Amino acid sequence: MTTRRSVDFIDGGSLSPADRGFTYGDGLFETLRVREGRVPLWSHHRNRLRDSCARLHMSVPDEGRLFAEVIRLCDGFDDAVVRVTLSRGVGERGYALPASPRQTLVVAASPLSLDACAYAEGIAVRLCETRYGEQPLLAGMKHLNRLEQVLARAEWSDTFRGEGLMRDLGGDLVSATAANLFAVFEGQIVTPAVDRCGVAGVARAEVMACREVAVDAIPLSRLVVADEVFLTSAVRGILPVRAFAGRTWSPGPVARALQSHWRDIGLPLPWMEGSQS
Amino acid sequence: MTTRRSVDFIDGGSLSPADRGFTYGDGLFETLRVREGRVPLWSHHRNRLRDSCARLHMSVPDEGRLFAEVIRLCDGFDDAVVRVTLSRGVGERGYALPASPRQTLVVAASPLSLDACAYAEGIAVRLCETRYGEQPLLAGMKHLNRLEQVLARAEWSDTFRGEGLMRDLGGDLVSATAANLFAVFEGQIVTPAVDRCGVAGVARAEVMACREVAVDAIPLSRLVVADEVFLTSAVRGILPVRAFAGRTWSPGPVARALQSHWRDIGLPLPWMEGSQS
Repeated sequence: MTTRRSVDFIDGGSLSPADRGFTYGDGLFETLRVREGRVPLWSHHRNRLRDSCARLHMSVPDEGRLFAEVIRLCDGFDDAVVRVTLSRGVGERGYALPASPRQTLVVAASPLSLDACAYAEGIAVRLCETRYGEQPLLAGMKHLNRLEQVLARAEWSDTFRGEGLMRDLGGDLVSATAANLFAVFEGQIVTPAVDRCGVAGVARAEVMACREVAVDAIPLSRLVVADEVFLTSAVRGILPVRAFAGRTWSPGPVARALQSHWRDIGLPLPWMEGSQS
Repeated sequence: MTTRRSVDFIDGGSLSPADRGFTYGDGLFETLRVREGRVPLWSHHRNRLRDSCARLHMSVPDEGRLFAEVIRLCDGFDDAVVRVTLSRGVGERGYALPASPRQTLVVAASPLSLDACAYAEGIAVRLCETRYGEQPLLAGMKHLNRLEQVLARAEWSDTFRGEGLMRDLGGDLVSATAANLFAVFEGQIVTPAVDRCGVAGVARAEVMACREVAVDAIPLSRLVVADEVFLTSAVRGILPVRAFAGRTWSPGPVARALQSHWRDIGLPLPWMEGSQS
């Protein structure tokens, strides 16, 4: 069942069925790409983790120790994906915070393999019927309450190899189920806000740090007239969208430049490795 | 840490850190009161479990086997609370449903002790700043995505022995953090809808099955002019509210009649045992 998962590091021994991560989804996670022993987006992961811990009244784990554990588990992998899960730990029955919480930290690494075709040509995306609800108090965090994405992803089977776009209750696009959404209109890069729902992705943060990006609503009618559409993910990087709602695109200059940027910071995307790097 | 928890039954062995209950809150739970080897509200628990499994594309566990396990774990307890947790089981990385899911079922029993004073005199409630978000696709279910209640309950410490009332984004009251809300206005029993947020409680279902109840909005301004206010919970039964927002109430005839009903169906509340039953 866990063949792709190489090693689990659990701070606190085995996972208890009374762990609040299991009983209430009371915690957070980060999914990192580790390339040749480096985590180029670490500062963004660390910032989100700090921010989310504060919002959920949790303690930030020892960052040096966590980073060392991430690197240790990836020993032997050129390219790896690491999931770091931090829960509030074991609790008594009831929602009240434990008086003396001992948080649970799980780190799990797997080798990463990316599909070159998805980067070279782009991916198809579909529209999900499942919408994000509205909850400003939780929006932006990569917390463990992810039933919305589970239901959205359950709308298609693995034979469709693309992603699904999710809307908010008002009908505006927010993100893909596991990636953030960007569109380009006459040179202006736009991404939806994630302050009422959705996740403030680490790759989204990197794009916003190195490009001028407008945070603005993208209704369906606007997306289909975009010059470029692409998705961003800490693990998968920059994924051009090639087809949606009857419209097709070729990967555009903004996505291509960001793919080059990803290579430059140490996260090469597979189609570029032979051709350009 | 788990001193009050007597026994854990886990279908599938120990809990894996790759269990989707832990990684995504991908599952459901029920919290049952088991009194002298009986579960008087079982049919409501079963109905909600069936309904929620359908909504989350999960399989309903073998109900006869589950019921037998619940009863077995309570052997030796006159009064017990049992938490049944059903998750989608171990999964690979990513939101996609496992191709061959093997769901995880955890059943844990603890002895139950109820505070007689809360039933005789009622409890105080406070207003939570944390509001429910809006997500019709998840509303009503007792799923494992419970960060809203965790944050709401974190607003007060254990020195306040009451409950907290939560509002929706529009400001109308929805429920307490771990109980449903009812109010009585000139003989009419009213409870808020739970189709956009909140949990459709099992005790709420029992009240609605044995009384005429109007499902209607209760803004703050309406609650404070109620003739009676009470909370309902599968474990705690019927809890009169004695104080909120500067207003005080004595337990009223509707709450008293429902407490008697609870005794009649086999779930006596402690203050009544000596005095009335």
